[in-house]
This record gives sequence, C-alpha cells and structure tokens, in this order.
Amino acid sequence: MVEPGSPSQVVRVGVLGCGHVGSALVNLIDERNNAIAAATGLRFEIAAIAVRNPSRQRDLPVDSSLMTTDAAAVVADDSVDVIVEVIGGIEPARSLIVDALKSGKPVVTANKELLANVGAELYRAADAGGVDLLFEAAAAGAIPIVRPLRESLLGEDVHRVMGIVNGTTNYILTRMAEDGASYADALAEAQQRGYAERDPTADVEGYDAGAKAAIMASLAFGVQVVAGDVYHEGIAAITQDDIAFARRFGYTIKLLAIAERFSGGESGEHPEIGVCVYPAMVADHHPLASVRGSFNAVFVEGAAAGELMFYGRGAGGPPTASAVLGDLIDAASNLRRSTYSPVPAGPRARIRSVDELESAYYINIETSDAPGVLATVAGVFGRNQVSIRSMEQEGLGDEARIAFITHGARERDVQTTVDELRRLDVVSDIRSLLRVIEE
Amino acid sequence: MVEPGSPSQVVRVGVLGCGHVGSALVNLIDERNNAIAAATGLRFEIAAIAVRNPSRQRDLPVDSSLMTTDAAAVVADDSVDVIVEVIGGIEPARSLIVDALKSGKPVVTANKELLANVGAELYRAADAGGVDLLFEAAAAGAIPIVRPLRESLLGEDVHRVMGIVNGTTNYILTRMAEDGASYADALAEAQQRGYAERDPTADVEGYDAGAKAAIMASLAFGVQVVAGDVYHEGIAAITQDDIAFARRFGYTIKLLAIAERFSGGESGEHPEIGVCVYPAMVADHHPLASVRGSFNAVFVEGAAAGELMFYGRGAGGPPTASAVLGDLIDAASNLRRSTYSPVPAGPRARIRSVDELESAYYINIETSDAPGVLATVAGVFGRNQVSIRSMEQEGLGDEARIAFITHGARERDVQTTVDELRRLDVVSDIRSLLRVIEE
Repeated sequence: MVEPGSPSQVVRVGVLGCGHVGSALVNLIDERNNAIAAATGLRFEIAAIAVRNPSRQRDLPVDSSLMTTDAAAVVADDSVDVIVEVIGGIEPARSLIVDALKSGKPVVTANKELLANVGAELYRAADAGGVDLLFEAAAAGAIPIVRPLRESLLGEDVHRVMGIVNGTTNYILTRMAEDGASYADALAEAQQRGYAERDPTADVEGYDAGAKAAIMASLAFGVQVVAGDVYHEGIAAITQDDIAFARRFGYTIKLLAIAERFSGGESGEHPEIGVCVYPAMVADHHPLASVRGSFNAVFVEGAAAGELMFYGRGAGGPPTASAVLGDLIDAASNLRRSTYSPVPAGPRARIRSVDELESAYYINIETSDAPGVLATVAGVFGRNQVSIRSMEQEGLGDEARIAFITHGARERDVQTTVDELRRLDVVSDIRSLLRVIEE
Repeated sequence: MVEPGSPSQVVRVGVLGCGHVGSALVNLIDERNNAIAAATGLRFEIAAIAVRNPSRQRDLPVDSSLMTTDAAAVVADDSVDVIVEVIGGIEPARSLIVDALKSGKPVVTANKELLANVGAELYRAADAGGVDLLFEAAAAGAIPIVRPLRESLLGEDVHRVMGIVNGTTNYILTRMAEDGASYADALAEAQQRGYAERDPTADVEGYDAGAKAAIMASLAFGVQVVAGDVYHEGIAAITQDDIAFARRFGYTIKLLAIAERFSGGESGEHPEIGVCVYPAMVADHHPLASVRGSFNAVFVEGAAAGELMFYGRGAGGPPTASAVLGDLIDAASNLRRSTYSPVPAGPRARIRSVDELESAYYINIETSDAPGVLATVAGVFGRNQVSIRSMEQEGLGDEARIAFITHGARERDVQTTVDELRRLDVVSDIRSLLRVIEE
C-alpha cells in the first residue's frame, strides 16, 4: 500500500485494437485506476487507441480524440510507456509488437495466434529491447497459467500439461452430455449465445486449442513449439451414441489439449515432446471431467508438485481484459524498477509423431452377431499388440455393436488394427475411435 | 534458455530447518540443479543446513559437515545469498527471518503460522532490506495461489476467496462421505496414514486453515489480517446423519476457509472484510464440491475475471518443497537483477463480526411430531427474519426430525432462532447447524 496522499506515477498505455477485449480493458482501467493507484502507486492513462474505424460508436470512458487509425504512430510515440496489443492475427500485430519491443516499450498481448506461430521471434525482440513481453491472456483467458508456468513451476519437472482450453467446444459437449442435444443443435445454440463464431472451424476443429497448446508446451518444457507442431482432431464427429457409451463406462467426453514430455526433463537436455488436441473420454473421477459449460481448466503434472489444476474463464471480454490488466501492472512495475522478466525461447522442440504416441482407446464397431465374430475381432487386436481392457456388446444380428476400451497402445498399432478390422467381412463399420484418459 | 556452455551463477542457499520440507527441498535442488541451470543460468549450492540435532541420520545428497546447530551464524554468513526458513512456528523463525531481511538477504519461507501472525512486520523488514520475502508454500502448499493473488489479480476487484486449504480434514470428510466411516474412524485412519498429527487439534479445529485464510485475505484485499481475526469452527461434530442429509439435498460437506470483502474494493479505500473457517454444505455443482481426499483448492471470485479455481496438493514434503523451489528461483533471479517484489502490508483490516455475516443455513432439529409443531417452529424462524427455503421431515412421534435449509440470513438472527427453538417444549434437540454454500 502506498503512503496516503503520495502522488502516483502515471503510466501511459497505447492500446492497439478495440474489440471485445480492448473495450473491456479501457473500461476496466477506468474502474480500477483508484484501487490500483492505492495498491501500487501506478495510475494508468490511455494515451491512444488504434482502431480500423474511429467513427464507430463506442461506449468508452475516454475522449474520442484518442482514437486513431495510425497504430504505428502509437507505437512510435515517445510519450507512450506500454503497448497493449489486442488486434489479433499475425499482421500487422507482429510488426507493431516487434517495433515496440525494439524501441524499449514493454508489450502486453492477448494474441494466441501470434505467440503460437512466431513466439520465439517476439521473445527475442523483448530480450533485445530489455523489456517485458507478457501474454497471460493468450493461453487461457482469465486463468493465471502463464505466470505459474513461467515462474512458480520453473524448477519443477513438469511431464504433462493437459487442458480444456476452448470454451466453445466445452459448451457444446456439455450441452450434448447434459441435455441430450445433437452436435448440430448444440453448435447452433452456442452460435446464438455468442460462444461460437458464424464459421466455427477454428474452435470445433481444434485450431484455437492447438495454438494454446503450443504456447503452454513452450512454457512448460522450455522449448519452441509452434501451432504447426500440434496434431489435432475436432469434435464434429462426436455423436449421442459416443456420449451414451462414455456415460455407461464412467467417462465424460472433452476436447483436450495435451502436451507431454518424454525425455530430457531431469537433466535439462533437449526434450522430446508430444502435442495434440483431440476429443477424449475422460474418467469421471478426473478433475477435468467436472469442468462444465464454457469454463476452461489446465491440469499440470509435476514430479514434486504432483497434480495441479487451474480453472476459470478462458475467453470473453472482461475475463481476458482482467488478465491483460494483471500483465499491464506487472510490466509497469518492472518498468519503474528498470527491470523485466525475460522469456527464454529455448531450442526448437523435437516433436514425437502422433503415430508413436501412446494412449488407451475407445473403439466402437458395427458387426454381424455371428458366432466367432468376437474371436476374429479380438485376434486382430492381439496381432497388433493392442490389449483389450473391457468390452461391451449391444444389439443382435446385423445391428450388433461392440465397444472396446483398450489398455495403453501405440497410435500406429491402433490405426493398423482399425484398418484390418474395417477389411473384415463381419465388421460393417468403425463407428467411433476416441482416446481414453484415466488419470 | 542460457547459451550452451555459458557458466552458471552459483547461488548459495542457507536452509533453516530440515524436517519433511527441508529434506525434500535439499533433494529436489540436487535433482533439478542441471535443469534449472540450463533454463535460468542459476545453480543452487547448499551453503549450510541449520538443524536441532545434527547427528540424526538423514539421507541427503550433501556433506554432513554442512549441518550446524547455529542458525544465526547461517543467517549472518556473508557467503550465503538466500535464506530458506522451514523451521515453522514463531520463534526463532521470526528473529532469524527479520535479521536475514535486514541484512539484505532474500528469504523464502513456508511458515504459515508466522505469516498469519506477524506477516506485516516481515513485509516491512523485507521492504527495509530491499529484498524479497516469498512464501508461496505457506498458503496452499504446491498450489500457486500467492503469486496469482500478488501479481496476476492485483488489478482485479476480488470479492471472495474460498478454499479447502486443509488436507487432513478434507481427507476425513471424504472418507466419511464416500465410505461411511465415522469421524473417529476416519481421523484414526488419517493418523495412521500420516495425514493427521497425533494431536489433530490444529487441523480438525480449523486453526491451520485459519492461518492460511488470514494470509490469503491479506493478499487478496491488500490489508493486514492476522490469525486472531479468523472466526473458526472445526469438523469434530459432523456426523453420518449430516452427511446423509447433505447428500439427499445435493450437497457435500467441506471445511471451508472464506474471506469476503464487503466494501472498499472499487475505490481503493479501507475495506471491511469477513474471514471465517467452518464446515459447510457445498452444492454438488460447485467446483469445490468435487475436491476429494487430501487435495486442496482455492476458489477466487473477481468482478472481471469471474470464477477461478486453483487445485493441488496443499501439504507434504515434495509438493511444499516444489513451491519453495519456485520462490527460490524467483528470489535468486531478482537478486541477480538487483530488484525485488515488495509486498505492501496495507492497513489493519476492519473485520466484520461473524454475528453480522450472512449465509444460508442447514438446521436439523429433533422434535415431537405433534400437530402444530411445524407452525410453531416456522413461527420462530419468521419472527427472526430467517426465511426457510426448503424443509424435510423424517420419522414420527418423539423421534421426528426436521431439516431446514434457509435463505441467506444474518448469523445473529440464526443464533437467536436456534436459542428460541431450543427453549420450545416441542423441540428436544438442535442436532446440527451448518452453513450452506450454493455458489
């Protein structure tokens, strides 16, 4: 707490972009400025807001003369102390951020796409400028996960980070599981409520979660992981049948982003990692299974710390703005103390191919219920080193279906098994193939 | 990542205390030193370990000559860069920490008792010495909650922090709920497994949780809260009846530490707060309800961020050592950059008396099943402004019991209601009185 009556130091903020997050931030700064000044002695002043269309009506507590279309001029303005980038996308965000960092201005960004593609370049620019590049809001919205990974767990031997990091898909899957909605209906409802875009591809195909997985893997394992390194599958193929089977077996279907480290953790040598996004059946006793609706959560496993989970709102204007504001205070405090927190870019990650990754699987096949079918099918699993943990048959005759849950098996072997099953006369269809997460 | 081959900077650590946490830390530093050096350029060296009994056999990867009984000499040693205090208790920990801070040595501590009683004195000593006082391990073990509250959420208008911050009691309550164990049996089992002390008072009566509540309230609201400010009730009176009723109504009984702010959040003026520890019926849909066994979790509610939860291991040697190590890296990095993160002590909190706090309640009374009893009982509630939300009667005749759940009501009014009910002829006993948390 600062001495009562002592003058606070004014920090001039240049805001690039004024969509949901930008306008929520400008409002939040206005609301919280007195409290922040009392706690830290810092008082934020919006120096300029760069937007595409300055004449658009916005309900903001700042003079409209602060609106400009010239983002580069905001970055170049010597009277601006800190830059907040909430434009999104690669360009012009990238050039603006690099220019700001090189000129010694700290940058706070919520841009996951940028960090997941050219993060290392930005980290290096920050280091060259000797200033902060902070991006808490880019990984999981309001959930503080970047700071714990960068600081609290820097000494921890983290071997897996696993998260529900897309609120749209978690909302859809929750509606499907709890209210029996079809995928199409749940998606339409998410669109109506503003949780899903008109073109939902980035969410439902796992691109958004993949970008966040790349950022979290980079931080957790100290290596450069980019969006293109992430294997992903979406949720569009999930059916009510899958959900019913999951419930019966004691699972909940979630779209997971998983980053695992296979070597190199103890010695600090170059680790090999796997990074994937896919829908999986998560055992009901797992803390991630109870993350409902549009909430997000990140589950971190470390050798000494054990299991940790961070839960909250992964998107939305005010939650994202809250994370940006936390970073802004941090950047301004560091600036006042003439210091910064470097993010080590690390070497490029060695990525283990998805073919070589191991998981348990749920496989649901449609078969004729002839005598000996199970023996034939089980033989295919066995020949491919895929061991069956449990099995359930449903229906009779040509309508029969068998659901298997396997022990941990290599993706390549499971794919071979499925290919061979598909060629069997007694198998008419492979209805579902989902990974299973027990713990 | 540091340039390959570049020499790392040696940071000499003086460890005060070598119990579960201290020995886990010494082992962890040994295991993680290469990885930490690769990531940060810092290499820790144990300079000395102060213990009561240096001849005790310890399986530690350090030379036994580093053991000493002279903790003050470790603090005074100019070659020691950072002090870790894991002795616990008030003295000599307090004097040693103050001496270290005043002499310009950063201190990392896991000592919740100390921080909850003389935290402000320590914060001021750190500020006077211009060094870090870090205590992530003191609030919730391995769960990163101190850093998020101190940094990520510094700009956030936090209005409530609510946690399961004692693993012993959560283990006991989980065993009672899931396996039907009695309180006495569950406690005995917790003692056998080493989760509970031989004298379990500090855990089961809520003193341990109270100290953590004081620390979290101080950080969340920027005021000084001490252990003595915390109202607390323990779990020893919880019965299988309470658990059965809770399950039927859709709740799980948890020992909660709750810190709430009633005013002052927006403007930065002196806030009034409430800080309590008590067993409560938590609605099953609440994320805290699914925190099982010895796990801990802290639920934070902010105006912009929304609901956040931090989950993990709140105790145990390696998890606590992991949090200490995170702080140690932070302190050493700051030392290298000649900076530190001050903790503002804030003014003394204005504490709202528990009598004035509001909550919903569960009240279970034993009554004769005479006609008109319910009207008489309901009349008592009504006269005291306690509004009944739901009611369930069980049994007949002299054995009849009625369970009520109220809407939010003032503690003082509920206590008056209970006193008046107790004096009624038709009420033979007040069996239970528990607070209810819906959201």
